[in-house]
Amino acid sequence: MKRRIRVSSSQREELVDITEQVSALVRDVEDGVIHLWSLHTTCALTVNEGADPDVARDMLAALHELVPQSSKFRHAEGNSDSHIKTSLFGPGLTLLIEDGDLVLGIWQHVFLAEWDGPRKREVAYAIVSAVE
Amino acid sequence: MKRRIRVSSSQREELVDITEQVSALVRDVEDGVIHLWSLHTTCALTVNEGADPDVARDMLAALHELVPQSSKFRHAEGNSDSHIKTSLFGPGLTLLIEDGDLVLGIWQHVFLAEWDGPRKREVAYAIVSAVE
Amino acid sequence: MKRRIRVSSSQREELVDITEQVSALVRDVEDGVIHLWSLHTTCALTVNEGADPDVARDMLAALHELVPQSSKFRHAEGNSDSHIKTSLFGPGLTLLIEDGDLVLGIWQHVFLAEWDGPRKREVAYAIVSAVE
Repeated sequence: MKRRIRVSSSQREELVDITEQVSALVRDVEDGVIHLWSLHTTCALTVNEGADPDVARDMLAALHELVPQSSKFRHAEGNSDSHIKTSLFGPGLTLLIEDGDLVLGIWQHVFLAEWDGPRKREVAYAIVSAVE
Repeated sequence: MKRRIRVSSSQREELVDITEQVSALVRDVEDGVIHLWSLHTTCALTVNEGADPDVARDMLAALHELVPQSSKFRHAEGNSDSHIKTSLFGPGLTLLIEDGDLVLGIWQHVFLAEWDGPRKREVAYAIVSAVE
Repeated sequence: MKRRIRVSSSQREELVDITEQVSALVRDVEDGVIHLWSLHTTCALTVNEGADPDVARDMLAALHELVPQSSKFRHAEGNSDSHIKTSLFGPGLTLLIEDGDLVLGIWQHVFLAEWDGPRKREVAYAIVSAVE
């Protein structure tokens, strides 16, 4: 069975909040984990502060400066920076579930980190419900 | 059921060795995995060398330089660098368990990477014991 | 039971494609996840584009520049850069399995990111087959 959620980005570099979409998947899971996997090589998944939007802006600006869209790169599509930032943040996340809720700290939101948008993206998932 | 371990840091930037605390959780698990999750947006989890303390010092110094505590950031709390380093290292880890022991290489120790301490931190965990 | 795959690198910095080796482990798994763990502190695991080899070259070049093999480091073995890049990419991966195949996007390949080769490396794994 293919388990997928769909995410759309509207900027080249953007943190798209997918907390609600992921939370909806685990409502009926008493205790377990959900594994999330981005099916792409130019966007990643991460968890960080979702309260003050300036945090996301600062993160995007810092990563943009850290790995510039340089002309030195050889990959002809001009998005090597996007590939690199994808491996730095990582394409997968494993989130814990307790009593039908994601186990997240008070400030933690789940984001798809878009590094080469705007695009339509797919995130695969699998739930393991037997934990102790 | 809430499964948590508590970790205290004593510096703004510090790698706190939590290998013993995590090992103690898996003593009775024959074969499985333990998922660890930091409940915070300014500290991460990582595994790296624990034998020579200079490795941790070099890692902290390099990250401090890579993502400086810059005045250019907009987030008013002045800890955007901490948020960024948290997403670079990542807030979660999945460790393997064989015969009641963490599956770690000879030099590998488990660390909470504190990027905005000193603070009291909480790490959630879940154990999945049926593996093949 | 010890579950391990062996990987050899031939350069100091190299992305070694291990997609085939990992795929072979999951052929008989209907639905599940495979957890991979590098047992070393100077190589990591990542997933990124495997079609155009220039992507790997650009990634290695960018990381080499981002974390140089600097003389400022204190760790006497001269490979602090390798340790740092290991924590940036991360030593573990959790991949999804559907119908005996890894759930990967069309461009995604699994790589061991060697940061201090050439070396012989070991990657531990565990499969969890009960997912929903």
